[in-house]
Amino acid sequence: MSNPVLVEVTRGNLVESRHRGAVVAVDGEGHTVFSLGDTDAVIFPRSACKAMQALPLVESGAADAYGFGAKALALACSSHSGEPEHVALAVEMLAAAERDVGALECGAHWSSDQKTLIAQARSLEAPSALHNNCSGKHAGFVCTCCHSGTEVSGYIGYDHPIQRQIRGVMADLTGAIFARDNCGVDGCSIPTYAVPLKALAHGFAKMATGFGLEPERARASKRLIDACMAEPFYVAGTKRACTRLMKTAPGRIFAKTGAEGVFCAAIPEKGIAIALKCEDGTTRAAEAMVAATLARFFADEPEIRAALMAQANHAMSNWNGMHVGDVRVTEAFAI
Amino acid sequence: MSNPVLVEVTRGNLVESRHRGAVVAVDGEGHTVFSLGDTDAVIFPRSACKAMQALPLVESGAADAYGFGAKALALACSSHSGEPEHVALAVEMLAAAERDVGALECGAHWSSDQKTLIAQARSLEAPSALHNNCSGKHAGFVCTCCHSGTEVSGYIGYDHPIQRQIRGVMADLTGAIFARDNCGVDGCSIPTYAVPLKALAHGFAKMATGFGLEPERARASKRLIDACMAEPFYVAGTKRACTRLMKTAPGRIFAKTGAEGVFCAAIPEKGIAIALKCEDGTTRAAEAMVAATLARFFADEPEIRAALMAQANHAMSNWNGMHVGDVRVTEAFAI
Repeated sequence: MSNPVLVEVTRGNLVESRHRGAVVAVDGEGHTVFSLGDTDAVIFPRSACKAMQALPLVESGAADAYGFGAKALALACSSHSGEPEHVALAVEMLAAAERDVGALECGAHWSSDQKTLIAQARSLEAPSALHNNCSGKHAGFVCTCCHSGTEVSGYIGYDHPIQRQIRGVMADLTGAIFARDNCGVDGCSIPTYAVPLKALAHGFAKMATGFGLEPERARASKRLIDACMAEPFYVAGTKRACTRLMKTAPGRIFAKTGAEGVFCAAIPEKGIAIALKCEDGTTRAAEAMVAATLARFFADEPEIRAALMAQANHAMSNWNGMHVGDVRVTEAFAI
Repeated sequence: MSNPVLVEVTRGNLVESRHRGAVVAVDGEGHTVFSLGDTDAVIFPRSACKAMQALPLVESGAADAYGFGAKALALACSSHSGEPEHVALAVEMLAAAERDVGALECGAHWSSDQKTLIAQARSLEAPSALHNNCSGKHAGFVCTCCHSGTEVSGYIGYDHPIQRQIRGVMADLTGAIFARDNCGVDGCSIPTYAVPLKALAHGFAKMATGFGLEPERARASKRLIDACMAEPFYVAGTKRACTRLMKTAPGRIFAKTGAEGVFCAAIPEKGIAIALKCEDGTTRAAEAMVAATLARFFADEPEIRAALMAQANHAMSNWNGMHVGDVRVTEAFAI
């Protein structure tokens, strides 16, 4: 099936660009409570599933052994902007396991946030792996290996114990298959697996509700989701969508983006989770889609609903600050 | 009609993201020689029509009066990266009309090219309007006004003589309507008008061939197109698609991108021009589409064809330099 147009970008009185996509919200039992587009199609969750990938860090006892609080757990689930606080915390996490930047295998890149990039350009010769948006997740992998006495080197490889462990966790959560056939390599070099969009949402609904999970996994899941909601800055950064969405209803919304237009989210108290993919991989559209989908579940709280819809539908300005158009979700969301 | 998927982005063995769009190639008489998708739909050409907007600079005699060579004319048609050579030439153009950065009304922004942005961050407190990717076009407007004795201030406004003149030129070239109803405001604050994709292509085919144009307009059009092809660095910048495409067959291909996934191109010797719009506004897809479309017209020159197809279909690497997937045009181009 063809995915519907879910987001339009206007200029003057006309629509200039259109984004298609698929969105699904499910409960802990896996029942669909809202959907648009082809939710059975497989998508790469990319960084949107980092909270799932962080489960071994908690379940292994490494997080406790190294004294990690909510900030470190949030950073382990993050795609951060490389702001000084993010970088310092990644250093701290590695130091707890007596490691440093040399252990990280994620590669280096400048911040994708312009203000942070400018500050980095003025203070650094070049970025290191600590500045990589995935350095918190990778620090978590390193700590998990160190705690269990597993060789750290090569931890990004498909056959390394930590990646095998992650496959097991994600298969349990989503009920999907994790194997060579549906495996790609992520930006930070670890394996990423294409899964049905609905299965991804179900995995997050199980994390958010504990439904169908062993008690230890349910506890670890709650701890990670709670950590992200408690420390939203450490999940993304200044002015970033994940951080902003979680701040809209503190402690009540979990939200995590992934590259190529993916977003996962959950509202634990309502027992639901959301997964979505913008077909063309565009971030601005995925952000609008997740905000509009979350807003549906706050129909009885007009202030939160309005704050979320203001993130779904918003004005765009040009270099002189003139209003030139809008990003807005389409009538498809009116169902 | 629904636009077909024209570009796929893969990861591992799977397609991760898909881009739809419309493409048309026409000759000077306006006959379609190749098309995909809805080519009657209106699109905002944005910066892709800068060569049209530069016609008053040449036709008014301002370019000659100020001694502008191919580099300055190319910069007047450019969306440049704000590299030092671009900025210096914009200063020079303004100085020829005894003006400076203070005359520019385009607003300021840091370079969108990361390497240039890092250099700017290290040498500048903040960017000026000279660093705006449109500063060459705006310098051209300022010079046109100065030469004719028109008040410069307010030259970005819908009712200013230079914008009225541009509407007249573009209506003559495209046969489309240019009025308030189909007008939006561009990133650099001048009016931009939604026109049918095919009409835009026809306008460039007329510029590239002179077909149906008054002799003076035909000469000015040839001079601008030739200037861009002769000085492709000044149309965009280091590693940019427009520059690269024009360098693939020096003096034979004209190519100019616009924001939100637009590309216009021409092959004067073959008497055709191309216009395309990626429905979702993504640059990577528009670049693949224009390269694949240009390649069709070099079927009898395998080296050029291969060089263009290598720009249409190319590998993507991650932060560690590992091959993670590809950008590729779809079978839709096989017609």
